Amino acid sequence: MATADKIRHVADRIAKAQEAGNQVAVVVSAMGGTTDELTALAHQVTAHPAPREMDLLLSTGELVSCTLMAMALGELGVSAVSLGGAQAGIRTDTAHGRASIIAFDPARVRRELAAGRVVIVAGFQGTTEEEDVTTLGRGGSDTTAVALAAALGADRCEIYTDVDGIFTADPRVVPEAMKLNELGYGEMLELASYGAKMHPRSIELGAIYNVPILVASSTREVTGTLIHGGVAMELHNKVRGVTYEMDVARITVRGVPDRPGIAAALFGPLSDAHISVDTIVQNASADRLTDVSFTVEQVDVKRALEVVRALALEIGAAECVSDEDLGNVSIVGTGMQNASGYASDMFRALSDAGVNIEMITTSQIRITCIVNRSQVHEAVRVLHKAFELDQEADSAP
Amino acid sequence: MATADKIRHVADRIAKAQEAGNQVAVVVSAMGGTTDELTALAHQVTAHPAPREMDLLLSTGELVSCTLMAMALGELGVSAVSLGGAQAGIRTDTAHGRASIIAFDPARVRRELAAGRVVIVAGFQGTTEEEDVTTLGRGGSDTTAVALAAALGADRCEIYTDVDGIFTADPRVVPEAMKLNELGYGEMLELASYGAKMHPRSIELGAIYNVPILVASSTREVTGTLIHGGVAMELHNKVRGVTYEMDVARITVRGVPDRPGIAAALFGPLSDAHISVDTIVQNASADRLTDVSFTVEQVDVKRALEVVRALALEIGAAECVSDEDLGNVSIVGTGMQNASGYASDMFRALSDAGVNIEMITTSQIRITCIVNRSQVHEAVRVLHKAFELDQEADSAP
Repeated sequence: MATADKIRHVADRIAKAQEAGNQVAVVVSAMGGTTDELTALAHQVTAHPAPREMDLLLSTGELVSCTLMAMALGELGVSAVSLGGAQAGIRTDTAHGRASIIAFDPARVRRELAAGRVVIVAGFQGTTEEEDVTTLGRGGSDTTAVALAAALGADRCEIYTDVDGIFTADPRVVPEAMKLNELGYGEMLELASYGAKMHPRSIELGAIYNVPILVASSTREVTGTLIHGGVAMELHNKVRGVTYEMDVARITVRGVPDRPGIAAALFGPLSDAHISVDTIVQNASADRLTDVSFTVEQVDVKRALEVVRALALEIGAAECVSDEDLGNVSIVGTGMQNASGYASDMFRALSDAGVNIEMITTSQIRITCIVNRSQVHEAVRVLHKAFELDQEADSAP
Repeated sequence: MATADKIRHVADRIAKAQEAGNQVAVVVSAMGGTTDELTALAHQVTAHPAPREMDLLLSTGELVSCTLMAMALGELGVSAVSLGGAQAGIRTDTAHGRASIIAFDPARVRRELAAGRVVIVAGFQGTTEEEDVTTLGRGGSDTTAVALAAALGADRCEIYTDVDGIFTADPRVVPEAMKLNELGYGEMLELASYGAKMHPRSIELGAIYNVPILVASSTREVTGTLIHGGVAMELHNKVRGVTYEMDVARITVRGVPDRPGIAAALFGPLSDAHISVDTIVQNASADRLTDVSFTVEQVDVKRALEVVRALALEIGAAECVSDEDLGNVSIVGTGMQNASGYASDMFRALSDAGVNIEMITTSQIRITCIVNRSQVHEAVRVLHKAFELDQEADSAP
């Protein structure tokens, strides 16, 4: 949430939802800039704040916005109550800064709802068994919202954000991109993993508990995108969207002895250093020497190279090289793996447009090509057109 | 606490206290200006924030400063842990904005201390049985500190503030004022009630649990003032200090029917309106009509007049008048009531200086004169000299 103005606007919307006869529980994030301000304060006293202290510090941002939201509702004559993570019953593990929700006891939330109150829960936070405050890390507020909806058995979870919904492609790159009215969890997961505006963990949680999630604009009154499990049959076996990432770097370790355990030796230490590895490609080899390539986020490439260079020495690899000017482009849609032709259509469209493919990776419902960063936007436009996403996007939900 | 600089300075002092072999638990208040900023935010969304929401909002100020303090200690290599009011075990009643501590379970604090950690507790806050956050109102952080010391059975409670200690008079008014090395609870209570820099409730708590309280400067390394029960005998029966207030207003209700229950009729509604009444003087009367005068804080006089004018009609009083240009001056010292001469010495000194006395009120250890506001400072100087407070203030503790 950004400003007091925005808080009042959202309060207005919540009031209407309650007037319409719904019991409403709301999860709020911190106001824009708050997290940065608190982090700056911490760095005024120490370069290495303890994660436990950092969590209690950052959790105040959501407490501020949830009390303000409750006050704004009060101003509209709506009875509302704000709850911190502990009060709301959100129990997490002790991984400060990136905690996982391990239990959600919504007894207090239910009690307040039964009393006719709108409940405002501080997102992004919970407490450990020891009653220490934790934060959930990236996508934390969305995750709180989906978890709350699941715990309450709510009809659906609505996520209001700064976009109108989920599009067939990024409208800044493809002006013809169309908003999708509905989408399956798996499809959204792939889109979210590759650039769209939601963190995959909240989608995963929604899929597990079968919570329908509406993504819509917090400021504009337009229909959003409903992510749910019951997507109409005729939308299967169809490309639903094109997504991309600009900040991909590739590291290649050449001349790796091809023996069991070599992958663990290489990727274990990267995981220990909290470097997230995406696509991995290993060439088959006859001479028991192989090349291993993998992609990381641009921001991690220097640290990753340090880790890998040390390992390359240990395992007797020949050399490590990096290519930092890459991006990726993906087409997403349920059932693509089973239907033939999508991959070849994709490669041909890119080839016709002069886009060279560096690496390929696929999942059940996604095909991703790693390409040169300068060609990513062009690739998105080409694929959007090739799969006719500028036509009617989907049937109305 | 003011800035990150100040936090680092205090952290340094705490580290030294621990190095000296003490188990240290610290209570912190919010950083300067925080409470005003949060209040302003609330008023951006509503003119009438719900007290419950206001409390959760304001409590974030102390959470921020206690985490920063723990981080600053970490930076010095001292193991520290910050605790919010609920974590620290502070249970209060439900009077939001001015809650009272009803129980203090320091189990978590003890556990952390036993583990060798410095414990930083967020002052000014607690939680109700329902786990709602409350704030303690005025003097809240000092009260938290004294309550924590009492709950832990600590050797003493040290309060670091922006003054060097408690003085025989306000040094801005009396340049010759001397710092007191020690003081009894009762004396401090009277000084605190009449202008010195501590809220009476924390002193009362200290007296009840016999917690020695040191008031000292947060920035300067000078001996402060120790408030305790065992003040040396020779300091009894002696004026210890002169204190004053500038913002006194008097309301007089004339022609009040002198019958039982009239005081309750008058002062009950003032109490209901949260208007604190101080000195009350009722003239004896022969004709069953009497004048009742009482003082309130300047800031409350308009509201008090509204309440009293309505009541005057009901009870058949003749009229209500107010005098808003008053102040008071007090001499304080244990045993004054029993020793003769203090009152007459005080009145003579004021009279000799041409200061007119409007009202008089006394306690066991205090004599207060209400005087014209313009003469308050002069009265303080005259009394400070008359009772020889510019000589050696007290024996070293």
